[in-house]
Amino acid sequence: MIRHVTLFRWNSSATPETEQQFAAELAELRPRLQGNRALLAGPDAGLIEGNYDFAVVADFDDADSYLGYRNHPEHQDIIRRLSGPMTSERHSVQFEI
Amino acid sequence: MIRHVTLFRWNSSATPETEQQFAAELAELRPRLQGNRALLAGPDAGLIEGNYDFAVVADFDDADSYLGYRNHPEHQDIIRRLSGPMTSERHSVQFEI
Repeated sequence: MIRHVTLFRWNSSATPETEQQFAAELAELRPRLQGNRALLAGPDAGLIEGNYDFAVVADFDDADSYLGYRNHPEHQDIIRRLSGPMTSERHSVQFEI
Repeated sequence: MIRHVTLFRWNSSATPETEQQFAAELAELRPRLQGNRALLAGPDAGLIEGNYDFAVVADFDDADSYLGYRNHPEHQDIIRRLSGPMTSERHSVQFEI
């Protein structure tokens, strides 16, 4: 199984509403993702200073399922409309679990 | 429940052996962490160019359990000996799940 992780630092255009919309649309997309086992996303809890602003963690059966999510037209549309415009920095890892 | 995520970019001193030792020592620490539900760590799978090098994802009952992990003397010792010296960049998020 592959766990995909992305951490985001937002720019000044991000709001709690746009963050929530981003998380909600990812959750709505989830049932249409082949080979997806879990998808959790949310804003940083504010426990530690200097953290990034938002995390997405999603588990997939295999690399192909992950790439299907990455390239899914609805996912690309969510990035284009929501996360892309409010992203300052973004880093990812996929690792075997 | 709190999910803690850290992504690392290593410097040139990192090797597969030091990565593996880091993951192994985190796994050994896990049974001594109060309120920990899961701890998964591993190197990037190499699916996407430009990714960071290593991820740690750990789930805790609450913020106090997470902070207990963060401040645990054995965790601090693992950082001092293993991840610290090979880290170039490091970003974290804790979020509610």
